[in-house]
Amino acid sequence: MSDALGYAAQSASEPLAPFRFDRREPGPQDVRIDILYCGVCHSDLHTARNEWNNTLYPSVPGHEIVGKVVAVGDQVGKFQVGDTVGVGCMVDSCRECPSCGQGHEQYCDQGFIGTYNGSLYGGSENTQGGYSDHIVVDERYVLKISHSDNLAAVAPLLCAGITTYSPLRKWGAGPGKKVGVVGLGGLGHMGVKIAHAMGAEVVLFTTSPEKVKDGLALGADAVVVSRDPEQMAAQRDSFDFILNTVAAPHDLDAFLTLLKLDGTMTLVGAPATAHPSPNVFNLLMRRRSLAGSLIGGIAETQEMLDFCAEHGIVSEIEMIAIQDINEAYERMLRSDVKYRFVIDMASLSGEQAA
Amino acid sequence: MSDALGYAAQSASEPLAPFRFDRREPGPQDVRIDILYCGVCHSDLHTARNEWNNTLYPSVPGHEIVGKVVAVGDQVGKFQVGDTVGVGCMVDSCRECPSCGQGHEQYCDQGFIGTYNGSLYGGSENTQGGYSDHIVVDERYVLKISHSDNLAAVAPLLCAGITTYSPLRKWGAGPGKKVGVVGLGGLGHMGVKIAHAMGAEVVLFTTSPEKVKDGLALGADAVVVSRDPEQMAAQRDSFDFILNTVAAPHDLDAFLTLLKLDGTMTLVGAPATAHPSPNVFNLLMRRRSLAGSLIGGIAETQEMLDFCAEHGIVSEIEMIAIQDINEAYERMLRSDVKYRFVIDMASLSGEQAA
Ligand SMILES: [Zn+2]
Ligand SMILES: [Zn+2]
Ligand SMILES: [Zn+2]
Ligand SMILES: [Zn+2]
Repeated sequence: MSDALGYAAQSASEPLAPFRFDRREPGPQDVRIDILYCGVCHSDLHTARNEWNNTLYPSVPGHEIVGKVVAVGDQVGKFQVGDTVGVGCMVDSCRECPSCGQGHEQYCDQGFIGTYNGSLYGGSENTQGGYSDHIVVDERYVLKISHSDNLAAVAPLLCAGITTYSPLRKWGAGPGKKVGVVGLGGLGHMGVKIAHAMGAEVVLFTTSPEKVKDGLALGADAVVVSRDPEQMAAQRDSFDFILNTVAAPHDLDAFLTLLKLDGTMTLVGAPATAHPSPNVFNLLMRRRSLAGSLIGGIAETQEMLDFCAEHGIVSEIEMIAIQDINEAYERMLRSDVKYRFVIDMASLSGEQAA
Repeated sequence: MSDALGYAAQSASEPLAPFRFDRREPGPQDVRIDILYCGVCHSDLHTARNEWNNTLYPSVPGHEIVGKVVAVGDQVGKFQVGDTVGVGCMVDSCRECPSCGQGHEQYCDQGFIGTYNGSLYGGSENTQGGYSDHIVVDERYVLKISHSDNLAAVAPLLCAGITTYSPLRKWGAGPGKKVGVVGLGGLGHMGVKIAHAMGAEVVLFTTSPEKVKDGLALGADAVVVSRDPEQMAAQRDSFDFILNTVAAPHDLDAFLTLLKLDGTMTLVGAPATAHPSPNVFNLLMRRRSLAGSLIGGIAETQEMLDFCAEHGIVSEIEMIAIQDINEAYERMLRSDVKYRFVIDMASLSGEQAA
């Protein structure tokens, strides 16, 4: 075992604080990664505060990890010491079910093993995430990073990037397609950049008139203030696909009615309390679909990272020290971040754990 | 104008009664059809009673029409006097929009012209439906019937048949696919027959244990009583497609969780009050979709009729006289029909309209 240092929540009501714990030594197929940067995802906050009622404490969050390989097991073939690599939301899955076989490990029949708050197969150990100095992961769940600089801004691709890339690919965003992105936050701003790079006509929907300029700068062809009924009416029946990144309960019909024949709106966030029930007439009338999508598979995450490197896509970030994490959570709850916090893990050195 | 005799509702609260009205003389592209049989659809009742708040009175319902051609306009090419033909839910559409151009007239941008309760383009006339002795329809919206006998049982194909056939085709029901059909009524029993004929493995879901035997006889490979949690649990994550024919508000999650990766559940009925809002997690977890579908296009309706003739598929019906229509509505509300009422329009002769 190796001694790891991170920041953990000890209970739902305590702030995150320094925490020492054990990581396994790299096995034959494992890679040990020293963590450089870790993005801050809403799931981190939900887990730290037990908002999904499934948190095992102590809990070290973080699943948007970029780091350097510092050791490899003797059967590791894909990586060597010194490589820049990433780890996203998963560190393992059953590898045997049809979903795993098709490269959709995120839909593993046994449930994938989360990078944090995931029980390891056959054990009661709780996985601990990227708010820490290092991590040990099977090479099959480690991604190559080919971006050459701005690595802090690459970290959010590992969750926010793949969560938007996967449905955009699945539902055919590309030239000739009109794609809507609902919400300009950590997920939405990645969705705009990626859909634009895929060649689609991109319309961003936001409730905030002050975000119009940002949306256009990020690559949207148009920005619609969704509280303006006239602007919304002008978009009716015109979208091939809408990526809805808003997890807060809201009126889905306002967006479903913007889809054209056979159009789909895909949700990538689950609300804590239900959305108002969508009007079935809006699904019937143009054979529209309401779908969901969860992150993406490992091969697809690699494809996304390569696509983003090729197109010069990174996240818009605000860098913080690990000591700022509790304040960052409060700001995240107020949507006071453009558009993702990333922890500079160098700030962890010298911390003394309780 | 020609003098037509039918049964009409004069208001939301009055029973249907004999009614004389005018039909147009056949124009150059029109076909005049003497009606032999007309199926009784739930939409007829909703319209007669103004339950959708859009009924124009007097209202003659009926859009599952089978009859004989008795006159044709001089530019009619598809039909001649003596042909057995059908008319379904539409008698016209704009013919110019992208949906019409693709043969999806049911999704016409201008709205299709309903066989009843539809304003004709450029006029204030209310179309009147198939509870009548004859109808005049543009040949483009008239279907050929190649069934050689049992024509009364063919009538429900014109709405119940196409409403189930279209989504089953669209979402790929066929060999190697596991298809669920929710609800054993006018729509559901057609869905079971058609999905079975398409070669899919068919599982019928019903709340009524007494319908198990019927479901198997209609062609289901298995019948699941949806109120039995154990039977439902055994079906989890296993369906490629579920056709949900139940319009009454119900728990969609119970069926969404039965879909496997990338599976779709399609609703073909709209509830009067909303379904409980579906749990977004169930959409996210296996990239499932919830969709809607509305009847089918004209070319697809012809394809469905030919498919059903080839496979010997008709509806299970109970024949009634037009004088029984008000009682039939009451029985329909109690689901006391196996599985569709069809009016023998010969019963109309000798009626004296008020
Ligand atoms: Zn995340
Ligand atoms: Zn698996
Ligand atoms: Zn109908
Ligand atoms: Zn049209």
